[in-house]
Amino acid sequence: MPETILVALGGNALVKVGQQGTIAEQAANLREALAGIVELIRRGHRLIITHGNGPQVGHILIRAEEARGKAYELPLDVCVAQSQGETGYLIQQGLQNLFMQSGVSHRPVATVISRTEVDPTDPRMKAPTKPVGPFYTREQAVLLRERGYHLMEDARRGYRRVVPSPLPVRVLEAGVIQRLVKEGVIVIAVGGGGIPVHVVEDGTLVGVEAVVDKDLASSVLAVALGVDRLLDLTGVEHVKLHFGSPMERSLDSLTVAEAKSYLAEGHFAPGSMGPKIEAAIHFLEHGGREVVITRPETALEAFEGKAGTHVFPL
Amino acid sequence: MPETILVALGGNALVKVGQQGTIAEQAANLREALAGIVELIRRGHRLIITHGNGPQVGHILIRAEEARGKAYELPLDVCVAQSQGETGYLIQQGLQNLFMQSGVSHRPVATVISRTEVDPTDPRMKAPTKPVGPFYTREQAVLLRERGYHLMEDARRGYRRVVPSPLPVRVLEAGVIQRLVKEGVIVIAVGGGGIPVHVVEDGTLVGVEAVVDKDLASSVLAVALGVDRLLDLTGVEHVKLHFGSPMERSLDSLTVAEAKSYLAEGHFAPGSMGPKIEAAIHFLEHGGREVVITRPETALEAFEGKAGTHVFPL
Repeated sequence: MPETILVALGGNALVKVGQQGTIAEQAANLREALAGIVELIRRGHRLIITHGNGPQVGHILIRAEEARGKAYELPLDVCVAQSQGETGYLIQQGLQNLFMQSGVSHRPVATVISRTEVDPTDPRMKAPTKPVGPFYTREQAVLLRERGYHLMEDARRGYRRVVPSPLPVRVLEAGVIQRLVKEGVIVIAVGGGGIPVHVVEDGTLVGVEAVVDKDLASSVLAVALGVDRLLDLTGVEHVKLHFGSPMERSLDSLTVAEAKSYLAEGHFAPGSMGPKIEAAIHFLEHGGREVVITRPETALEAFEGKAGTHVFPL
Repeated sequence: MPETILVALGGNALVKVGQQGTIAEQAANLREALAGIVELIRRGHRLIITHGNGPQVGHILIRAEEARGKAYELPLDVCVAQSQGETGYLIQQGLQNLFMQSGVSHRPVATVISRTEVDPTDPRMKAPTKPVGPFYTREQAVLLRERGYHLMEDARRGYRRVVPSPLPVRVLEAGVIQRLVKEGVIVIAVGGGGIPVHVVEDGTLVGVEAVVDKDLASSVLAVALGVDRLLDLTGVEHVKLHFGSPMERSLDSLTVAEAKSYLAEGHFAPGSMGPKIEAAIHFLEHGGREVVITRPETALEAFEGKAGTHVFPL
């Protein structure tokens, strides 16, 4: 039975550890990461593909910084918009080239620029925690603080700008994405968690200097679209308890109730596995049937229940 | 009777002469440029909005150049993709905010990342003529030539990189755009003429270091969509004969046959009014009913026949 599946591609599907992340490297990584997804499409499933944008926005910020005074400045919402164009294009073209090479009959693919509404009164707006862009020296950090940036010291690598990471309220383009998915179009959306915007007093929308978590935004979109399953492709084959300790243990499956207690016990790192588990809980508590967390390489096996970690409502 | 209209926004709708083109300036310019378009939408017309990206890609190239060695390099196709995300977002949000402020009931708006297929055997691919990015000194030009860039000397302002500007064959996303337009979605597409791609031997698509003319690509899309009218918004209220000379004369209307002879007589500058007239001819020879060329400020009057230059098939 064809299903509607939201596939969230983690940063490592585009840039691997140790790579600078050139466009050629990203295209090659995507060819590997998308192989399982092509097979899901061949089987007739409807897909929405979301993706991270950490390295891409990092490099956009480096370029903006280096060209300061020579090119106009880029607020963070515009950086995210640029990265959606860049990465959407690469995923789209990579996917269609794999269709061609693996004999999958033509399926239209479209990248929809997506905005995520956030709440200006969200307490997270007052507490910048999400690191973005390059590392700075102490001297640079002093200058950047004068510019109004929040900077956090990283024990080994210097200083880094931190921005708020508010919770996603809704994806403004959900309706348009829904229309396309219903017609069989594979849609690439909510890149980097979506362009963060909020509604101001007169009812108009303005961009926000913030970054929305990609997994949480994907979950909000998945609920809005009434998706069957969420496939979260990341750097590890399984979700783990006691990660990085001698007691480390892989999980094959868990329920929302178990996920909540493990989360409360601190098993999942904030900014890493934490938001993935929170996203899974949100999706499964709002009608979702199953969340699968695994690596892109094991996506297909995991979809068939033979790999990865499976999260169920009960 | 509601019509389907393709509106092509020229660069000056976003950045005015003398401005650096900050995001705040672009947003303010858009508010003015989109006012007439909002009225067309209020009247129930279906719209596709295309746009130029000269200043935006120019600044993306400046940033990439300044960050050379610190951030990964951006091929021109990826620069265009980034600019589509950036400008699509600004137009989309500007338009929806104008809906809000002028009481137009909600109409969905979507930005679709768009690729334009070009022919690798197009003779224009061998003759780079389209200037992109910043001006360089003679010393910089020497280094850039070693990198394989083509550079052209500009009498007053230094050297500038030139790239090929091949003819658009088709817009790959025309089908997806058509689906959305049919459902009443205002679609922003083919930014900067579309991301130039061509088909290689094995049938896969690859990006090309080139720039497609925005007006020609808009015309190819308009024909594919079976659009009624094409509204080309640029820096002048009328198309002119003997432009810039004492014999200068504004045209209120002309036929395709007249357009062809004026074009042959050299009335329309290449890279400026020339491609607009070529685009109009192509559209009108392939089923289009009317092309209107004018400034954004007179868009509505021109649409009603009271301003601008009107081009008709006969």
